[in-house]
Amino acid sequence: MAITVVGSVAFDSIETPAGKRDRCLGGAATYFSLSASFFTDVRVIAVVGEDFGAQEQAVFDARSINTAGIERTKGKCFAWEGSYLDNLNEAQTRNTELNVFADFDPKIPALYRDSKFLFLANIDPVLQRRVREQMPDVKLVAGDTMNFWIKDHRPALLEVLKGLDVLLINDTEVRMLAGKDNLLQAARAVLTLGPKALVVKHGEYGATLFHGAAESQRESEPASQPKGVSAGRPFRAPAMLLEEVVDPTGAGDSFAGGFFGYLASQPELTPGAFRRAMFYGSVMGSFACERFGIERLQKLTRQEIDERFILFRELTHLD
Amino acid sequence: MAITVVGSVAFDSIETPAGKRDRCLGGAATYFSLSASFFTDVRVIAVVGEDFGAQEQAVFDARSINTAGIERTKGKCFAWEGSYLDNLNEAQTRNTELNVFADFDPKIPALYRDSKFLFLANIDPVLQRRVREQMPDVKLVAGDTMNFWIKDHRPALLEVLKGLDVLLINDTEVRMLAGKDNLLQAARAVLTLGPKALVVKHGEYGATLFHGAAESQRESEPASQPKGVSAGRPFRAPAMLLEEVVDPTGAGDSFAGGFFGYLASQPELTPGAFRRAMFYGSVMGSFACERFGIERLQKLTRQEIDERFILFRELTHLD
Repeated sequence: MAITVVGSVAFDSIETPAGKRDRCLGGAATYFSLSASFFTDVRVIAVVGEDFGAQEQAVFDARSINTAGIERTKGKCFAWEGSYLDNLNEAQTRNTELNVFADFDPKIPALYRDSKFLFLANIDPVLQRRVREQMPDVKLVAGDTMNFWIKDHRPALLEVLKGLDVLLINDTEVRMLAGKDNLLQAARAVLTLGPKALVVKHGEYGATLFHGAAESQRESEPASQPKGVSAGRPFRAPAMLLEEVVDPTGAGDSFAGGFFGYLASQPELTPGAFRRAMFYGSVMGSFACERFGIERLQKLTRQEIDERFILFRELTHLD
Repeated sequence: MAITVVGSVAFDSIETPAGKRDRCLGGAATYFSLSASFFTDVRVIAVVGEDFGAQEQAVFDARSINTAGIERTKGKCFAWEGSYLDNLNEAQTRNTELNVFADFDPKIPALYRDSKFLFLANIDPVLQRRVREQMPDVKLVAGDTMNFWIKDHRPALLEVLKGLDVLLINDTEVRMLAGKDNLLQAARAVLTLGPKALVVKHGEYGATLFHGAAESQRESEPASQPKGVSAGRPFRAPAMLLEEVVDPTGAGDSFAGGFFGYLASQPELTPGAFRRAMFYGSVMGSFACERFGIERLQKLTRQEIDERFILFRELTHLD
């Protein structure tokens, strides 16, 4: 089933120990939709400026991503400049230009309205909520956020969390959001804020799926709707052991794309589907790190994805 | 088969966010042998002072651990004082008193000589080597070390590494030993120094088993002796998600005890045995953190261990 995603389409200037790239196409919605497009149909809501040209459009077209909801307006695209020279696990932002994003008012094309899956990428929670409210009939809503919104826009973020089925954030963010150092305690606290499930990303150590109120429920027992979201014990997916992390930009959004894309491709949202989705998320996040920007995602094949899925199974399974 | 372990038996004074304990029985050999004793027979080589009394001896006796190799001498036991108030993942040492350990010259009782498994806990590499050389006929030798020996006693440590089948160290130590930041690159570099296999402990994120030269070998292919040590792809075991880490002291030694104890209990050292050993290591490490000092290990049952093993499987396995 189709996913609608709202988020940023941007130009990134990135420096890592492996090198440097200027103004490559990026943004959370770009990474998410490229990644999810290997699993299901994807529809994007975003805003771009006049510097978004035929070359950028072609990136989405090559993966058959629906861009009817990408609004083109006067001005320049959102631009971000960051460095990973000090720490490959956390970007140091050198410069941010909101540009056309400053006045972004997400509009949902009529043909997106039947989407059953909605992903709210990391943008202003006020915008996330506006999109969520315009799509009341979706089957599953997932979202991302970041330290900036957690610290300085908490009330708006808390409103968004109430409407989420799955929240995907990283270790630092879950601890900041919960005000607790212990991961399990932090996860439980966040699950009282609305999300029925929580995915905490641990960077090179993988990611953990936590479930809400019905934590002790097992696959064989009756589960609340949608099945799977609130059923089962915590589940941990590994990350790939990479010889070189070329560029971690977009790894989290690629994880979300693999996770949510796989879920949207499944006939039923069983606990097993959620576990496999965690693996696919981690697989896509690992590919994203192998080249600068979206380079690796552009050249990826479904066969490579499934081969890495098997490697992940071998990395973690006893037999 | 029986394991001989050489290492410290000490009194620890510990402060963590959960509280404080003065002079509780600890030391790497104590944690290791208690943990391994749930899987196989354990024989300890250590030195203690006059403050090691009937109460301390009873701790070993309760788990049927052979203490014939614990030398009793004049003076006081090795004593350590540390705090985890700033960081639960790394102890801040407040005070170390070597005491009787300063002149430790490990002697191996005749009845230990038929041990097929040898564990060299974290002590001066000169002593590790001396023990290793006195037991040339062991089937499998594993060892631990720490930043102090890596930084300031490198030549002696490199000699020890040449005689090891399995080295168990943590993330920081493997990077320091290899001089490389990337985990996979660091692991590969360390595997050129002697050990046929390397276990890297990631604290709350579990641990990874790396194999030496024959990395691409699979279970079905012929493996060098001892089978399993050098065969198979990397394998990651999870850690337990604990509501509260009461005291991380000895978690690494307990991991080693579970890992090596399980291996010693197996009829054959297959790659599958190594994977299960990683799980048992992580299981034992997680129990150690649940109470101060050795308290949790003293009250543990094999049934609890196997129940947690099943939890670990559910935490990581797709089906």
